[in-house]
Amino acid sequence: MALEFYHNPQSRAAMTHWLLEEIGCEYTIKPVAYDDGSMRSPEFLAINPMGKIPAIRDGETIVTESTAIAIYLADKYKTPHDLAPAIDDPRRGEYLRWIAFQAGAIDPAMMQASTKVDIPRQSAGWGNVELVMDVLDTRLAEASPYLLGEWFTAADVLVGGTLGWAVQFGLFEMRPGFENYLKAVQSRPAFQKVFAG
Amino acid sequence: MALEFYHNPQSRAAMTHWLLEEIGCEYTIKPVAYDDGSMRSPEFLAINPMGKIPAIRDGETIVTESTAIAIYLADKYKTPHDLAPAIDDPRRGEYLRWIAFQAGAIDPAMMQASTKVDIPRQSAGWGNVELVMDVLDTRLAEASPYLLGEWFTAADVLVGGTLGWAVQFGLFEMRPGFENYLKAVQSRPAFQKVFAG
Repeated sequence: MALEFYHNPQSRAAMTHWLLEEIGCEYTIKPVAYDDGSMRSPEFLAINPMGKIPAIRDGETIVTESTAIAIYLADKYKTPHDLAPAIDDPRRGEYLRWIAFQAGAIDPAMMQASTKVDIPRQSAGWGNVELVMDVLDTRLAEASPYLLGEWFTAADVLVGGTLGWAVQFGLFEMRPGFENYLKAVQSRPAFQKVFAG
Repeated sequence: MALEFYHNPQSRAAMTHWLLEEIGCEYTIKPVAYDDGSMRSPEFLAINPMGKIPAIRDGETIVTESTAIAIYLADKYKTPHDLAPAIDDPRRGEYLRWIAFQAGAIDPAMMQASTKVDIPRQSAGWGNVELVMDVLDTRLAEASPYLLGEWFTAADVLVGGTLGWAVQFGLFEMRPGFENYLKAVQSRPAFQKVFAG
């Protein structure tokens, strides 16, 4: 049975869609609507009790949370396109670090920029919006065109996808390094296929 | 060369310390102080430009962000104690889901509870504090004593460690399911060794 992808294109699940296209594995889209109660139906809550997409079902395995799905898929499906350093690859640490940076730093910084909330330093593991932008910017000055250099990985889907929204919604300022990076990731055929429609 | 662990016991890096003890691999602690500028020294910023701990150096590989470190270590060091389902294990999805739930749901819910900030639904991927507690509580009613049943994994270090703080600081209410789970994880010898001192 092909992998099932619980999806709504009007959401950040579009990043998982992009990832599936990059990996090139077979999958079936299971649409989950916001406006007809599907997201809170007993059937869907059995898949994800958080009542949110994305979620995937791969045989008997269900995975939720974009970060978990990305790590899971990129480790398991290495053909036709390999998007993750293997467990014994020295680049694995850098790869996981940028994956975790998306959920642990970019995401909360975006939330902070969008709500304009003052969060005390001890509650803000990510520091502040400026620091998060600076750290990413510095990395993109060291490694190009992607976070791991020539190797496009699942980390670029999460970081590139989130950064694209952050800049588009005016939450992060555009910087030359961000612009070059976004140009590189957004020109990929898989991105175009998912987002150009 | 043994793995190097950049640490300050007055921080959430204590979870990584606990994890290292659970795995049982060799490591050397590199203390990083808050009060003498070490956290912002050029030497440490070369390890983690975010200027925060934990961070590890494993040969030529540097890993930062608790989530990334946990996934990295548990996948790579499977002896003497195996704390992670392998890539082809059907339980891998559940494992990664709870690891991601800590950074993507429990952590922001704690931040919300501590700052009492009103965050609009579309900026709050985790929903709200109550939903996060409910989803975790439901899982702990299905699986016991640990998130994957009898198998204690790195997910229990992240979720159990964070939940312990959330309850201790009054950010999450104590519930019977949480109490049983915290009793199980906190009675482990590795936890006792790190936190009882």
